[in-house]
Amino acid sequence: MDGVIAPSADRVREDLAALARLTDSAQPGWTRTALSEPDVAGRESVLARMREVGLDARIDPAGNVIGVRRGARGGRMLMTGSHTDTVPSGGRFDGMVGVVGALEVVRAFDEAGIRLDHDLVVVDFFGEEPNRFGLSCVGSRALTGVFDTAMLDVLDEEGRSFGDALAAVGIDPATMMASTWPWDRVDAFIELHIEQGPMLEHAGTSIGLVSSITGISRFRALFGGRRDHAGTTGMDRRADAGCAAAGTVLAVERIARSGPDGAKGTTGGVTFTPAAVNVVTEAAEMRGEFRSIDDEWLRTAEETLASCAAEESAGRGVTVEMEWLPQAPRRLDGSVTEMCRRAVDDLGLSRAELFSGAEHDAAFIAARSPTAMLFVPSVGGRSHCPEEWTELDDVIDGIRALAESLRRADAVRR
Amino acid sequence: MDGVIAPSADRVREDLAALARLTDSAQPGWTRTALSEPDVAGRESVLARMREVGLDARIDPAGNVIGVRRGARGGRMLMTGSHTDTVPSGGRFDGMVGVVGALEVVRAFDEAGIRLDHDLVVVDFFGEEPNRFGLSCVGSRALTGVFDTAMLDVLDEEGRSFGDALAAVGIDPATMMASTWPWDRVDAFIELHIEQGPMLEHAGTSIGLVSSITGISRFRALFGGRRDHAGTTGMDRRADAGCAAAGTVLAVERIARSGPDGAKGTTGGVTFTPAAVNVVTEAAEMRGEFRSIDDEWLRTAEETLASCAAEESAGRGVTVEMEWLPQAPRRLDGSVTEMCRRAVDDLGLSRAELFSGAEHDAAFIAARSPTAMLFVPSVGGRSHCPEEWTELDDVIDGIRALAESLRRADAVRR
Repeated sequence: MDGVIAPSADRVREDLAALARLTDSAQPGWTRTALSEPDVAGRESVLARMREVGLDARIDPAGNVIGVRRGARGGRMLMTGSHTDTVPSGGRFDGMVGVVGALEVVRAFDEAGIRLDHDLVVVDFFGEEPNRFGLSCVGSRALTGVFDTAMLDVLDEEGRSFGDALAAVGIDPATMMASTWPWDRVDAFIELHIEQGPMLEHAGTSIGLVSSITGISRFRALFGGRRDHAGTTGMDRRADAGCAAAGTVLAVERIARSGPDGAKGTTGGVTFTPAAVNVVTEAAEMRGEFRSIDDEWLRTAEETLASCAAEESAGRGVTVEMEWLPQAPRRLDGSVTEMCRRAVDDLGLSRAELFSGAEHDAAFIAARSPTAMLFVPSVGGRSHCPEEWTELDDVIDGIRALAESLRRADAVRR
Repeated sequence: MDGVIAPSADRVREDLAALARLTDSAQPGWTRTALSEPDVAGRESVLARMREVGLDARIDPAGNVIGVRRGARGGRMLMTGSHTDTVPSGGRFDGMVGVVGALEVVRAFDEAGIRLDHDLVVVDFFGEEPNRFGLSCVGSRALTGVFDTAMLDVLDEEGRSFGDALAAVGIDPATMMASTWPWDRVDAFIELHIEQGPMLEHAGTSIGLVSSITGISRFRALFGGRRDHAGTTGMDRRADAGCAAAGTVLAVERIARSGPDGAKGTTGGVTFTPAAVNVVTEAAEMRGEFRSIDDEWLRTAEETLASCAAEESAGRGVTVEMEWLPQAPRRLDGSVTEMCRRAVDDLGLSRAELFSGAEHDAAFIAARSPTAMLFVPSVGGRSHCPEEWTELDDVIDGIRALAESLRRADAVRR
């Protein structure tokens, strides 16, 4: 039966379930955040599973789990994969579908007797979700040589550095930059992922072909006021950092609402210090972000928010400092996406073109090698919550589309 | 030298310094919050100092440190005192001045050979500042029989109950209501305290006579939204609990600013859950308060805020629940205050009448026995912060006024 790719729903279900069991039981939903014990266990389990399916696998200096299926000709590579870390109280599909799906592609290729010319590289990228230090896509940044080592000194709320937190899970910050890859030998990277939005479900479509990945401008704002007794300090004598932050939270929402189609603005968290009911707030910290595929609008939104924050602060005698961590929108590769489109059509699956409002490791890989992304539907568009769900049939369709796309990419002679 | 009361600045300075040394060294400023180890040590040190100055002293079932100096006639009592717990990162005077001052009055009476007819009762009230369970004036509530035992089941952020937290510092919640006092035998309670505001300093006045203690309406608001992916969930499909809370923070400020003279509104803290930068906030908790000596305005402010919170929530598909813990304004006793006024005048000290924007144990005692309060100036009006300061000369003037006022109250025959 050479050439017929038949992914097994049972195996995929079991692989997803095995990862779901590795969760922080102290939190609702599914929690396997980067830098935590469950994430160490999760990546070890992926390493073991890669070896079971015959890959030459290892964990690289940046925590990425990388397995290689040797090709007939060698030298050139195709790459696929995603991540297995989660947000706190997240779901069982975001990232996992792309890793489990890649493993199933390998098994299905083996069963169908398919040997590619290219080496097929499967990656479980370390730390894709934003960690408590505010950094996302740690593994793919390192692997593409853009990890900012200044981040190693950033402290969490307990005063521990990101570098120390990495060391605690077995990643040596001194050597992690040795995690690089010969990107000039990679002919295509294709990531399978859940949509995390409602478009595919609404349209009744099986596969989303991703044209662009959103740009993201993350920020941290620090408001500095004066602590005073809340009962004796008149409203006109206060420097209330909390009120300045609250006004800025509303500004984030307002700016995004009046942005272009698909623009988003979110405040992820606010902390008041001290958090005592009878003390005027001395300091407030706020973290948030804007997202859009329109880079020019992101710059405008940054400027508008900075001026709103300054206004909310100045009117209250509060100081404000903002730090931005911008990430440009990324157009994916048209030729690889075209191969995916033909693969999806040949399989008789329905498809739609869309952009990704979520960030992905693929945005970093796209800067180095031709990259495409395949989305499968999310029930109710829900994600980053325990309710996150994708039907197994849809996952299987995605795996078939991924396998066929890789075969088409393999067939291109360079 | 019978009858000449001469407080010792050296002893007062040393007593204040001894308390200041008992602080949580992990926090800036001075921190001796109720339910903490330093507070246990602080009250033990007050107990020891009471015994050193010859008081018959004990710690009662509600954690109050109570010392008695027997009077010549017995049966009737005068009471004075304050508290020695602090807010987190607070100062060295709020409360301490009234306890240390009372001890110095006892020593000065002894040195001057003054024996009162009344028993003189000195109290260091347990837990005056709002604790992490949102309850203030715990000891004076228990001592006046108005402690709400439903509070024992309130949980802190770590899921520990107030009752368990009390037990951990040696206060048995089952028996603490046994802390009651024969208030019908108390002819006057006089509390010496720092002003915690700028009025006395601005006017260059030594002593403040307190006419009323502010009413306080504390609240907790819980906003319930929906957690969603911040990159894929459109602005119009969100139920962002954090934005609803931010709008309500601004409403607290707005309502208080438009309130009557002296009205205050403060948000003490806000918590977003989850606090992840790429997740729409599912739940927000907010704690705050309004203060005024105008009880009617407090009711109006409560209603206005409730409707603002409902509006901020409904417009975003968020739910909101509010709990209120109101505390009525309290007028102090005119006849005891009149005795204090004459004492201050006889000492040749300047005086002003003012109301207290801060809450005090005296507000609870005033419901049971005739009560007055004496304020001494706060430098810059600062309080509940490490910068809190009162000049030693002003503390000494306050102690002299307290001693003379107690002598006048002692001279009244009932």
